[in-house]
Amino acid sequence: MIIALAGGVGGARMAHGLARILPPGQLSVVVNTADDFTHLGLHICPDPDTVMYTLAGLADPERGWGLEGETFNAMEALGKLGGENWFSLGDRDLATHMERTRRLTLGEPLSAIMADFCARLGVQHAVIPMSDGAIRTLVHTEEGDLPFQDYFVRHRCRPAVTGISFEGAGQAAPSPAMQDLMQSGKVRGVVICPSNPFLSIAPILAVPGVRSWLQGRQFPCIAISPLIGGKAVKGPAAKIMAEMQIDATPRGIALHYQGLIDGLVIDHEDSADASGQCLVTGTLMRSVADRERLAREALSYLESLRTV
Amino acid sequence: MIIALAGGVGGARMAHGLARILPPGQLSVVVNTADDFTHLGLHICPDPDTVMYTLAGLADPERGWGLEGETFNAMEALGKLGGENWFSLGDRDLATHMERTRRLTLGEPLSAIMADFCARLGVQHAVIPMSDGAIRTLVHTEEGDLPFQDYFVRHRCRPAVTGISFEGAGQAAPSPAMQDLMQSGKVRGVVICPSNPFLSIAPILAVPGVRSWLQGRQFPCIAISPLIGGKAVKGPAAKIMAEMQIDATPRGIALHYQGLIDGLVIDHEDSADASGQCLVTGTLMRSVADRERLAREALSYLESLRTV
Repeated sequence: MIIALAGGVGGARMAHGLARILPPGQLSVVVNTADDFTHLGLHICPDPDTVMYTLAGLADPERGWGLEGETFNAMEALGKLGGENWFSLGDRDLATHMERTRRLTLGEPLSAIMADFCARLGVQHAVIPMSDGAIRTLVHTEEGDLPFQDYFVRHRCRPAVTGISFEGAGQAAPSPAMQDLMQSGKVRGVVICPSNPFLSIAPILAVPGVRSWLQGRQFPCIAISPLIGGKAVKGPAAKIMAEMQIDATPRGIALHYQGLIDGLVIDHEDSADASGQCLVTGTLMRSVADRERLAREALSYLESLRTV
Repeated sequence: MIIALAGGVGGARMAHGLARILPPGQLSVVVNTADDFTHLGLHICPDPDTVMYTLAGLADPERGWGLEGETFNAMEALGKLGGENWFSLGDRDLATHMERTRRLTLGEPLSAIMADFCARLGVQHAVIPMSDGAIRTLVHTEEGDLPFQDYFVRHRCRPAVTGISFEGAGQAAPSPAMQDLMQSGKVRGVVICPSNPFLSIAPILAVPGVRSWLQGRQFPCIAISPLIGGKAVKGPAAKIMAEMQIDATPRGIALHYQGLIDGLVIDHEDSADASGQCLVTGTLMRSVADRERLAREALSYLESLRTV
């Protein structure tokens, strides 16, 4: 079993590449839930949904988030009624949030609901929310503490970040499927997807037991750097690194994942800043073919580290 | 001030006709809320919304309910996720329910929310929910008691009706705007729209104080029969009348409204069954012109009864 740790868009694309190579029984994608939030009375799970839609082949290839061919009629109408429409939810996407909220309200765990949704949408690989508990990213900025979506969407990542914390992480537990994976002894390797290390991967590592499980691993673990030429393909990773005085380089990423990874996959553009065990390749995923190629290279690299 | 008592489609069309003739300060539409229900976590108000959409010129002219040019992508997606999609909600319509539910949850009364929605959608006439309290129609049938939407939508009015009750009516009060109307002394007449007398108008009359206010009226009140040729234009009125051993004729309607109306507007097709004070005309509203014409005739008739 290969485990991919993933956030939203970049993580979903990498996970998709892996899913096209590995059979369903050999890949589990563990997804960040710390960006989840309640909005318009709905429980919204940006990263799990992005991974689910991407693996289902339903994701919008341009935007990265949401569904292809989506309509936004409800949001437009909501604006006319004076409602909050700063967080854009597509019409089909709304159904996911409505049905999830209904089932959560009845007491069903998030991970069970997502497993059922994935099955219904034809996703054959396991998409596992990191936890069924409420872990919420709080972004500490020079303008005060902001819940993640406030920082990310409403403020468009503008405020300078001074720190990040994961509220509720101490009281949470890994989701049952994640616990099973950690206890199974069947893990052949872990791939940390090119998601934001601070906002998307850090919360997964903050779930009690996950970091120590990875630190004490008997299997190789690699990360794919989310940076290309010192910049994030998408999102504020490089900006946050600068604000937190971390080099936006492979070195900075390797240092951040110290003790957790055996190798780092970096882009050609960053090869000058390579340090330690690295695989240099093209990490930009423009097409599904790119995802597959990168996944194939990452898996080979992972295997090579096993035999070292 | 003219007050129209209205349910959904037929009531909305009549109210629309009246609204095209009377200036905003001279018409208030009091709407049934006993069909309101909670579905998918949303507070849905079928009749108030139908009246609001119709007066806003946004209603679908064919279906009668919902918005013109509406899409149903959320419902379709909900079906794919195994959600409940027996009650069809359009994408734009969903916004109305979402925003209303959000504001109700914050403690705002339904009538205030609807007044704001109407203003935002350009409705200039007052659309007044009969009550801000929870009054719910329960349809007693040979197959057991059914909440209204279960009877109406899920069971498509198939079970034979043995009685109808309005749960919570005893504890409810007229909405503030309705109370103002009742106490204003400015009412020049009441028009009971061609809505289902048993399912749409009866709940309005069941709100404490409304029936006695109408019985002790100093102004004329007329009803427009919802029957044409012994059949309802839409909905189960005639079927229910048969099941409850009430003649599906103008006589049956007049008897039902005994003591409450001074005259009944009936269709040419039912003229043979006319009884008491009647205006015989064409009551079918196919077009907006029909609505206007019927409204004009109804208002003249109402005025004529004042001078008797």
